[in-house]
Amino acid sequence: MSEEIAVVAGDGIGREVVPPAVDVLDALDRGFEFVEADAGDAVLEATGDPLPEETYDLVASADATLFGSVGESAADVILPLREAVDSFVNVRPAKAYPGVDALRPETDLVFLRENSEGVYKGIESKLTADVSTLTRVVTTSASERLAEYACDYAPEGFTVAHKANVMRETDGRFLDAVEGVADERGVETERALMDALAMHLCLRPEEYDVVVCPNLAGDVLSDLAAGLVGGLGLLPSANVGPERGVFEPVHGTAPDIAGEGVANPCAAILSAAMLLDFLGYGADADRVRDAVEAVLEDGPRTPDLGGDAGTDDVAAAVLDEL
Amino acid sequence: MSEEIAVVAGDGIGREVVPPAVDVLDALDRGFEFVEADAGDAVLEATGDPLPEETYDLVASADATLFGSVGESAADVILPLREAVDSFVNVRPAKAYPGVDALRPETDLVFLRENSEGVYKGIESKLTADVSTLTRVVTTSASERLAEYACDYAPEGFTVAHKANVMRETDGRFLDAVEGVADERGVETERALMDALAMHLCLRPEEYDVVVCPNLAGDVLSDLAAGLVGGLGLLPSANVGPERGVFEPVHGTAPDIAGEGVANPCAAILSAAMLLDFLGYGADADRVRDAVEAVLEDGPRTPDLGGDAGTDDVAAAVLDEL
Ligand SMILES: CC(C)[C@H](C(=O)O)[C@@H](O)C(=O)O
Ligand SMILES: CC(C)[C@H](C(=O)O)[C@@H](O)C(=O)O
Repeated sequence: MSEEIAVVAGDGIGREVVPPAVDVLDALDRGFEFVEADAGDAVLEATGDPLPEETYDLVASADATLFGSVGESAADVILPLREAVDSFVNVRPAKAYPGVDALRPETDLVFLRENSEGVYKGIESKLTADVSTLTRVVTTSASERLAEYACDYAPEGFTVAHKANVMRETDGRFLDAVEGVADERGVETERALMDALAMHLCLRPEEYDVVVCPNLAGDVLSDLAAGLVGGLGLLPSANVGPERGVFEPVHGTAPDIAGEGVANPCAAILSAAMLLDFLGYGADADRVRDAVEAVLEDGPRTPDLGGDAGTDDVAAAVLDEL
Repeated sequence: MSEEIAVVAGDGIGREVVPPAVDVLDALDRGFEFVEADAGDAVLEATGDPLPEETYDLVASADATLFGSVGESAADVILPLREAVDSFVNVRPAKAYPGVDALRPETDLVFLRENSEGVYKGIESKLTADVSTLTRVVTTSASERLAEYACDYAPEGFTVAHKANVMRETDGRFLDAVEGVADERGVETERALMDALAMHLCLRPEEYDVVVCPNLAGDVLSDLAAGLVGGLGLLPSANVGPERGVFEPVHGTAPDIAGEGVANPCAAILSAAMLLDFLGYGADADRVRDAVEAVLEDGPRTPDLGGDAGTDDVAAAVLDEL
């Protein structure tokens, strides 16, 4: 049966790195059917809406979505799309790739970020002329769903980030739920206060492996880890739901180089590999990752990695390695 | 007029590093009157309360407080004490000191952290068996008070950390208030999303100087910066209120070395220097900082810095340099 893949390239270099990722998926001959749709600043300017209903509906019904990057309107696009696929976990690997100048080359982390609640619920009020509030929401059900995923992903154990010394009830609930599931499943966990963890990741990243986080903690700590491995340039991510997912490079639209054909397509291609994993094509996913690593090791390089190759050169080299 | 200094050593190495800091203050001959009080895990165990009323009252009425460190009950001690002095800003310098193995030796940052609200208000509810909430509070008044301080502290400009793309109303209010004050005062600011900032601080710390943050963002980003300069070991901090303040090393109780007489007293002594600044003895504060730096450069070293000196040796060397 042929799967339908929604393709939402977005703005800026999203438009340049997504086509090579589609080519890679296509080259695997799995009979994927690709359907393109628009989102982002350009559509916002043209139509007044950064996320057309057709795009939302497509992502909500496709088997998986390959997403590029969106500019100013990013939050108005990616947050609804996470919801469209009922995404309960954002998977963010951060490892130092060969040939990249990393602050901590020994970093090899995966963040499993809660992707549906916390401070991201959009519940804010202007109470008085002086006071605004935001309601942070933590549920046992969402925390347990995340924990089940984490136990499957990391049966050898994981770290749980939190700030339960201050957010006692909400992060307390998060800890109880995650640890409860892990206990039942016989998976070991250790707690880490998110502030102390930010320091320890800088000092000793090799002591951590899989880190399960509340939503905002995951947002910040995964970006920190990107800093340890040399930047967002090569990092993929997966917004995973029970039946669908949205797969996106962690980098943004890179307005400074957009349109020049020199954007590095590796993060988008690695995101396509996460999509393959999600659809059950694990062997294909590994082939894609191996091809990207081989090219990073001694293939053509885009300027972000000190080379002078273009997006197409790198894309062609990856296809070649496949 | 002689100022009253409350001395709350707390638990663990707090009890070892605070006395040398008091000795340094005493050596300056400003006629300070020191009054000791208890707080922390030991008092909690003995009395059921980690923060005796006498301690709270003393801190609330003393001209300034020198604080050590507290163990498990830290949040129950330091958060009320911040409130006792109406502290609206937590000043956290993070710079690499000579002789310390730093991941990013070029780091020289000061975080000005909002110290009274955000997620720290303690407003949490268990709504149902599944759902808990926390109310994050942002006020224009607290944000403006922080901004006024920031403009005095950094007239050459500062960075404002936020997550207003998600927390639109609350961090939107924070940004408006801080930028409003800065505009009026003719001080330049630039915005930085807290997640992106976590990455950029790792990649290019030298591009930042003073960073104004909401409460939790400041908690996490300042610990991250501690990671860049080699750890919490040497970092002082100041909880500043309109008339009083609480000054504390950023490090914890270090249970692994507590009681052995080898704790590094420099962070506590540097916190005493911030206390001197606060009381208007800026020249004395500079003398103390110079003395500490001289000792760090080629005086005796405690084991955390690779030496085998004791707390007393380092303390004596600093007094000597004064
Ligand atoms: C664009 C923004 C809403 C988003 C987030 O905060 O989740 C981004 O930072 C990310 O990490 O994907
Ligand atoms: C102990 C804890 C409540 C405190 C905080 O979160 O402010 C600590 O992490 C700090 O940074 O001083």
